[in-house]
Amino acid sequence: MTALPQCDTLALQLDQGVLHITLNRPDSRNAMSLLMVQELRELIQLTATDDAVRALVLRGAGGHFCAGGDLRDMVTARGQKAGDGEDPFYTLNRAFGHLLLEVEQCPQTVVAVLEGAVMGGGFGLACVADISLTRADARFALPETSLGIPPAQIAPFVVRRIGLTQARRLALLGERFDGCEALSMGVAQFMAEDEESMEQQLGHILQRIRHCAPGASRVTKALLLRVGNEPLAGLLDDAAGDFARAIRGAEGQEGTTAFMQKRPPQWAKTDANDQ
Amino acid sequence: MTALPQCDTLALQLDQGVLHITLNRPDSRNAMSLLMVQELRELIQLTATDDAVRALVLRGAGGHFCAGGDLRDMVTARGQKAGDGEDPFYTLNRAFGHLLLEVEQCPQTVVAVLEGAVMGGGFGLACVADISLTRADARFALPETSLGIPPAQIAPFVVRRIGLTQARRLALLGERFDGCEALSMGVAQFMAEDEESMEQQLGHILQRIRHCAPGASRVTKALLLRVGNEPLAGLLDDAAGDFARAIRGAEGQEGTTAFMQKRPPQWAKTDANDQ
Amino acid sequence: MTALPQCDTLALQLDQGVLHITLNRPDSRNAMSLLMVQELRELIQLTATDDAVRALVLRGAGGHFCAGGDLRDMVTARGQKAGDGEDPFYTLNRAFGHLLLEVEQCPQTVVAVLEGAVMGGGFGLACVADISLTRADARFALPETSLGIPPAQIAPFVVRRIGLTQARRLALLGERFDGCEALSMGVAQFMAEDEESMEQQLGHILQRIRHCAPGASRVTKALLLRVGNEPLAGLLDDAAGDFARAIRGAEGQEGTTAFMQKRPPQWAKTDANDQ
Repeated sequence: MTALPQCDTLALQLDQGVLHITLNRPDSRNAMSLLMVQELRELIQLTATDDAVRALVLRGAGGHFCAGGDLRDMVTARGQKAGDGEDPFYTLNRAFGHLLLEVEQCPQTVVAVLEGAVMGGGFGLACVADISLTRADARFALPETSLGIPPAQIAPFVVRRIGLTQARRLALLGERFDGCEALSMGVAQFMAEDEESMEQQLGHILQRIRHCAPGASRVTKALLLRVGNEPLAGLLDDAAGDFARAIRGAEGQEGTTAFMQKRPPQWAKTDANDQ
Repeated sequence: MTALPQCDTLALQLDQGVLHITLNRPDSRNAMSLLMVQELRELIQLTATDDAVRALVLRGAGGHFCAGGDLRDMVTARGQKAGDGEDPFYTLNRAFGHLLLEVEQCPQTVVAVLEGAVMGGGFGLACVADISLTRADARFALPETSLGIPPAQIAPFVVRRIGLTQARRLALLGERFDGCEALSMGVAQFMAEDEESMEQQLGHILQRIRHCAPGASRVTKALLLRVGNEPLAGLLDDAAGDFARAIRGAEGQEGTTAFMQKRPPQWAKTDANDQ
Repeated sequence: MTALPQCDTLALQLDQGVLHITLNRPDSRNAMSLLMVQELRELIQLTATDDAVRALVLRGAGGHFCAGGDLRDMVTARGQKAGDGEDPFYTLNRAFGHLLLEVEQCPQTVVAVLEGAVMGGGFGLACVADISLTRADARFALPETSLGIPPAQIAPFVVRRIGLTQARRLALLGERFDGCEALSMGVAQFMAEDEESMEQQLGHILQRIRHCAPGASRVTKALLLRVGNEPLAGLLDDAAGDFARAIRGAEGQEGTTAFMQKRPPQWAKTDANDQ
């Protein structure tokens, strides 16, 4: 990445191969505006081809992750007629679904840091991260049905994340829940009681990501996301090809050599010590 | 619904948009007879088009939910020859699978109240409810294989409810388990220690259902059930259409207006106060 | 089975319809060599048609289940050129995926007894067992990405076993975990604190398997494995046929008769007493 793009709604920082993306509209608890969706989509696309970026960390400014869709966009869309073209509400909603799928599919390992409000679209974003780390006191919900609308783009990703049974409960009752419940349902895989523990755990997660080879991690992520969406036999054939290429490639040679020499591999060089 | 149908095996009561359905064969612990299957299927079909019914509550009379298939039907079927037509055992078994799918797909939010015996077909019924509330001391099992038969129509819904790993254990070992385990596996999402807590939690669940817009809940339920059964992109396209229609419709207008006016929406009017 | 085959890498014992298979390369913590894969595949194929074998128990010699792929095979494969034919690394890797699928699909109920190292391919094998019993202090991991290679044949089975969210964590962070975590994620369904409890629980599991009719268990297992891989309606049609055949067959007659006579069925005759 020659230079980080300028964004109105995001604050960006690149550090040791990790791109830290902060949703930066703290006045509206980082509500997901159409502009924010566009800026995130462009950023993900730009980053996808950049092998130097190994992980994305998504978090929110001002103590909240993301409170959901932006009400001002809704007001604007209502003011526009659904004329000959696409209904602006359709466009607005569908764009967010594209973002969710693009975050899910992006080659880097994506870490979401969840705190404060993680509502509606914010909850959807949490559901497509590879790794989600939540504060115990974060507040989650799918409140859409209580507002008279379906959690349209979000619900499918919630089902994929936590299964139909819990997704039904969240979507059809609209109940709030906290980080402990998010952990036990598998929305998040890590939980922190306070700010200090959160930073410590994030540091540990990033260290673990650096310990895994960048290329092998990309190949593995792509493989994991295909399971259940196509016949298994062809997937395993492709996977064997991935394996052969990887072990004959530079990473596979370095990885096995480092293992036999009992030293950390090159790609993990910022690791001080590791279990 | 102009009038509730007369049923031999079910007791029905309609209260504030909630249809309470009681499996009413307490002498056989509400064993699922062919007649009960027929009456339930007709009732579900009748209710499907009734917008005034927002939720179905399924429970059993006499302290048991449902002990499984009815043995007398089995004896009758054995007495009949599998002649030129369909084997009566095939018919009997397949009808129950149709019921399970129809309960799963019905537009209302379905709440199952589980207590006492929740065996075989009763367990299957628990697995297709949107919301299951169990007594801690309820007794669950898939005892079929120990009787020399497969849990044929039930097993697929168990896999969809709790995943292959736990379904394998239950079906291939035939072990009993209680409400605590049902909660931890995700058969149920709510658990009550006693009768009083059960009624209190059921009241809370129904209040939450009323808080969610009826139309948005139907659209959301249909959407949730499609996930994993078709390609995601088309599902998200349809969902964006659902969103646009909902937010421009009466519910969407009322829901967003009520939210901005900090008052409960019309459809939640029986709510006294809500979190 | 007229006679157990002679194997270099496996120790075999047939006892009361249970084939005990011990991965028997303790010097390399039962690393999964190409020869072991071949011997296991041939054994599974041979056993598949043997109705007298009702269960397979997979465990490792010397206190470890299986530490993963065999490094010597890797060295050999590297020495071979990927000439006109298939890359030896491809062959080596793909063969293991075939084994995993064949263990998963084999008609007997498969029990894995997990202790010590359950790494890489060993973890994959644990994920295809019907029943997994783990020592609390067993050590699990998917360390591949930290070696520069993808867990190619294994990852899909991990996703099917524990879902995408936890599979992502294990594969993209490469972290170790113990038997308690394996239990809570659903890798295993049973956990033992020590050797004595392990044997006791294994005895209980085998007793439960004997309590379930052999034919009905096979039909049920095949049914469970089809869920999610094909449309539900046709599966339920087939299942109703299975049901009718089973209940009219010898097992169905014996099972229902024994139930009414309050005695254990013939196939459970080694059961002393049972809950």
